[in-house]
Amino acid sequence: MNQIITIGREFGSGGREIGRRLAEKLKFAYYDQEIITEMVKRTHFTEEYIQRIEENGVLPLLPITVGRTFITRSPHMQEQGLLLFTEQSKIIKEMAKQSDCVIVGRCANYVLREYQPFRIFVYADMNFKIARSRKKGKELTNLSDKELKKKILSVDKSRAKYHQFCSNEIWGEKSNYDLCINTSLIDIKDSIYGIKKFVKK
Amino acid sequence: MNQIITIGREFGSGGREIGRRLAEKLKFAYYDQEIITEMVKRTHFTEEYIQRIEENGVLPLLPITVGRTFITRSPHMQEQGLLLFTEQSKIIKEMAKQSDCVIVGRCANYVLREYQPFRIFVYADMNFKIARSRKKGKELTNLSDKELKKKILSVDKSRAKYHQFCSNEIWGEKSNYDLCINTSLIDIKDSIYGIKKFVKK
Repeated sequence: MNQIITIGREFGSGGREIGRRLAEKLKFAYYDQEIITEMVKRTHFTEEYIQRIEENGVLPLLPITVGRTFITRSPHMQEQGLLLFTEQSKIIKEMAKQSDCVIVGRCANYVLREYQPFRIFVYADMNFKIARSRKKGKELTNLSDKELKKKILSVDKSRAKYHQFCSNEIWGEKSNYDLCINTSLIDIKDSIYGIKKFVKK
Repeated sequence: MNQIITIGREFGSGGREIGRRLAEKLKFAYYDQEIITEMVKRTHFTEEYIQRIEENGVLPLLPITVGRTFITRSPHMQEQGLLLFTEQSKIIKEMAKQSDCVIVGRCANYVLREYQPFRIFVYADMNFKIARSRKKGKELTNLSDKELKKKILSVDKSRAKYHQFCSNEIWGEKSNYDLCINTSLIDIKDSIYGIKKFVKK
């Protein structure tokens, strides 16, 4: 069985960087944006629409016409959410079957539970997340601290909602993960050496 | 400044073993039972009484005469709890000043916050904790699963209460720790190599 690492993360905590660096270090495949790209191919939803579904939960107030052609018999956003989740789960499972990999977000810890992934959750203090978001997110550079905090809380709320919808589990609740890492005071680059040792060989 | 590692842990999760092994590996001093021994010397409370205060929270229903001589002017258990906490904090700070060390339990993550300890929390699934408690705790061998679960929940409830009393923080809440480790599926011995890499040099 391939070795799977899943990474849940708070917005601005550096979870994606950890995932990317870990995949590089372990020479594992890395899946993040790649999942959305594959979804676009398969569902004919636009990338923007898929991202909005993920960001806004399963009942986004978007007109159904934003999707291109895929769902004609389902007028309900709830059903669209379900269809997206089902399709996404299929893609994630296919990726997990292909090779050892690191998968960021998208309920992968739950979707792949039968594969016994090593489940990581990355989090940080709000001040750290604000500073990091300002530094990393080009489009966020000009926001005030208050605006950034609002953005961070809003994205995390959506992630929590999406996770709850997919898994009925509480997002970020430590009992659902093997290792929870607070990046506020650690060096992310150095942490990779530690995480690597935790991952089963 | 000395390097300090604090370990909070759920009962039966193997947190104490992690602490002991980590201290050995890093050649750090290890403080656990030693804190109680020092408390006995200083307060003239019996070891049993101190443990009961810790296990039963700050308002244990014990007769004040269980303590030997220390507190004569304080008839209130709440005050005894406070005095114990104050004395314990002093001892913990003295230990932290002496050398690099690993300290298990006793709100050390909060008590030593100005020393910026590396704060670990160890937890596990209930089934794992039941199995481990049965294996490790001699006096627990004959308890049924139901009785063991009750014991585990009860000890953890007391730890949570004591922690809340000392720090006003929620015990086990991941934002108060740098690394949270779920021992249910990992090898405790191997995990030491990973934790070691996380600890700043």
